[in-house]
Amino acid sequence: MNPAPGAAGVTINPDRLLSDLRRLREFGACGVGVVRQSLSPIDVESRHWLCERMRDAGLEARIDGVGTVLGRSRNPGPAILLGSHTDTQPRGGWLDGAMGVIYGLEVARAVAECEATRHLAVDVASWIDEEGAFLTCLGSLTFCGELAPESARDLTDNEGKTLGEAIREAGLEGVPVMRREPGRYAGYAEAHIEQGPWLEHQGKRVGAVTGIVGSRNFVIEFKGQQNHAGTTPMALRRDAGHALVELAHRVYDTFPEHAGERSVWTIGRIALDPGVQSIVPGRAEMHLQFRDQDVAVLDRLEAQARALVAEAGARGRAEVHMTEFGKRSLPAIMDERLRGHIERAAERHAPGDWIPMPSAAIHDAQVLSRHMPAAMMFVPSIGGISHAFEEDTSEEDLVLGCQVFATAAANMLLD
Amino acid sequence: MNPAPGAAGVTINPDRLLSDLRRLREFGACGVGVVRQSLSPIDVESRHWLCERMRDAGLEARIDGVGTVLGRSRNPGPAILLGSHTDTQPRGGWLDGAMGVIYGLEVARAVAECEATRHLAVDVASWIDEEGAFLTCLGSLTFCGELAPESARDLTDNEGKTLGEAIREAGLEGVPVMRREPGRYAGYAEAHIEQGPWLEHQGKRVGAVTGIVGSRNFVIEFKGQQNHAGTTPMALRRDAGHALVELAHRVYDTFPEHAGERSVWTIGRIALDPGVQSIVPGRAEMHLQFRDQDVAVLDRLEAQARALVAEAGARGRAEVHMTEFGKRSLPAIMDERLRGHIERAAERHAPGDWIPMPSAAIHDAQVLSRHMPAAMMFVPSIGGISHAFEEDTSEEDLVLGCQVFATAAANMLLD
Repeated sequence: MNPAPGAAGVTINPDRLLSDLRRLREFGACGVGVVRQSLSPIDVESRHWLCERMRDAGLEARIDGVGTVLGRSRNPGPAILLGSHTDTQPRGGWLDGAMGVIYGLEVARAVAECEATRHLAVDVASWIDEEGAFLTCLGSLTFCGELAPESARDLTDNEGKTLGEAIREAGLEGVPVMRREPGRYAGYAEAHIEQGPWLEHQGKRVGAVTGIVGSRNFVIEFKGQQNHAGTTPMALRRDAGHALVELAHRVYDTFPEHAGERSVWTIGRIALDPGVQSIVPGRAEMHLQFRDQDVAVLDRLEAQARALVAEAGARGRAEVHMTEFGKRSLPAIMDERLRGHIERAAERHAPGDWIPMPSAAIHDAQVLSRHMPAAMMFVPSIGGISHAFEEDTSEEDLVLGCQVFATAAANMLLD
Repeated sequence: MNPAPGAAGVTINPDRLLSDLRRLREFGACGVGVVRQSLSPIDVESRHWLCERMRDAGLEARIDGVGTVLGRSRNPGPAILLGSHTDTQPRGGWLDGAMGVIYGLEVARAVAECEATRHLAVDVASWIDEEGAFLTCLGSLTFCGELAPESARDLTDNEGKTLGEAIREAGLEGVPVMRREPGRYAGYAEAHIEQGPWLEHQGKRVGAVTGIVGSRNFVIEFKGQQNHAGTTPMALRRDAGHALVELAHRVYDTFPEHAGERSVWTIGRIALDPGVQSIVPGRAEMHLQFRDQDVAVLDRLEAQARALVAEAGARGRAEVHMTEFGKRSLPAIMDERLRGHIERAAERHAPGDWIPMPSAAIHDAQVLSRHMPAAMMFVPSIGGISHAFEEDTSEEDLVLGCQVFATAAANMLLD
């Protein structure tokens, strides 16, 4: 394939890129990892810092009424919107979404410094709560008008704090929530670490994302009879924990028959009530999540989960109920034209060292793709590790990825 | 059999008994249940109230350096020691151990009011922490000299508070810990609700306990690799939660082959780390407890648990380690002579309505039985429910049980 034409002069500044990434890492640093959940005090602090850096880059920057940061170019559109998220998981890695936001910032600076491109409009966003402390992709959903901010105020985090309280504590009470400006955007591009092992396994350095998997989350609740762990004969027990373990075992046992080649399923949370060694649990709860690129496969896995719930209920150890929670994320196909620019830029800066690949993780690009052409680019994750403190990417890959992203972004507007 | 002779005049006061039980219930009342864990502020408050009631009954009462309440008769020995515990489970019933303590108090009063028995020495105890917020049977272990109080100061409750801190907050810092007075005690008797369904199922109203089962508690820890729930292919996962579920399933599946007729086993606690739906758990932990009257059966169940741990480790999903925690409770046989007094008193007040039976629950009597003759008496639990808010016993059974206990206790000293 022919490498990317034009925009030859757009050159990123590796030291500036890496120093901003390292500075952002300090907000919520915990060993080599980062704890910076949406709207926590340290997250809010980092958003004010980000606004400052955007202003230094010549952007009009502000934090909106849910916490999303948008840095707007002073140039007229059509604009390219570059973004990702700077919030983290409860025990998150330092790059994850933060890398894509700082890539956007660096690209905006590089484009503005280049004779051939300084007239282009590059907007940069850090969407609030992509990790779902309150609601997965909250910021991109409100920006695109898929979610009315008021309707989300009562959502709670794991500590039971409501989004409304968090917004008030962040000093954002009454601040307007930004909405996509009709007609301004030629498209959206998001860079992210792969969060998986494929690039590393194949010895590649850039991934041009073809599509993003959809996911569904369910809570399964078990109601039995709490009782004394010594005096209640095994035959007379209605042990909610036993019912949960047997259902979880059946999930691990039977899902492979119903799954697609790249389907994944996870039981990420189990809780027994009251949860002490000398009491037969009267209640129990588990979270079940599964992901696939194909809605038909997601439907099949959901049907199997419901069949197992019915089976567990019929066994009579406990009443069993399954309820979907969070926002169901739909599979998304990336825009052909924008993806072509990422592929050509990758071929130009890393000839032969890139591959087209799907994204197995949820990203804000899924939401944006329903409202404008959208594309995503991946850089390798060392050991495929992410959503963990150990998550990392080599400096060489961080720098190369940003240069590819800069060239691609400029060409999305020039071409 | 011949009903109990002598002590004819020892007659309990039903209204006084029930009103003290109801007053004690108010400390930590939560609906029909009670939340009064060892050394919590409300538990400490109830201990001061109990001391007052003991003093009203003519006993020398005090709270010792770990929280145990002892009401000592002013009469010379030999004395009978009557006791149980007033602390509760995190979500406990109103009777459980509280009934046995108030029985002791009422018996001390009834014995003192009766011409034929007022010279007898009846001491009454409320042992701290039988329910094991910090350490199961803490109070009886220190009273009997099996545990040095200093060695327990660093034990923590579920919130991570140390026993030392709890003692300080209870205002007991520096207060001496009471030790059994050599030569004073002719024996120990404990009344308790059955906590199981047997008396009710057989239409009986009193149980004369033959022996108490032993129990063992283990924590099983799993260490895998925390990772992203979307991007980590199923084949590459080291899911600590999956390893836990499979081991728990194997416990439920295989324990029946190794168990005795009345063995029980319970997985009362399961925790996944970090415990969120979008992350493959890197660590997991479960509590496994089992009980039986026969040490050989306990050894067999422990061997099976260790075999399953080895099996789970060999599967390679996680490193698996099993560690015993808490105080291993040994099966205990009740004293023939004291049990005979309970049986004769039961035959006298409830002819034909009593049975000899084992205790499937842990009791302080297990500890005391290693240091003096010990006996236990049960009253029925409605529906066999205990360690739950709904736990209850009919007033008729509460009154009858106390009268049987009073006659038996007096005869233990007279005969």
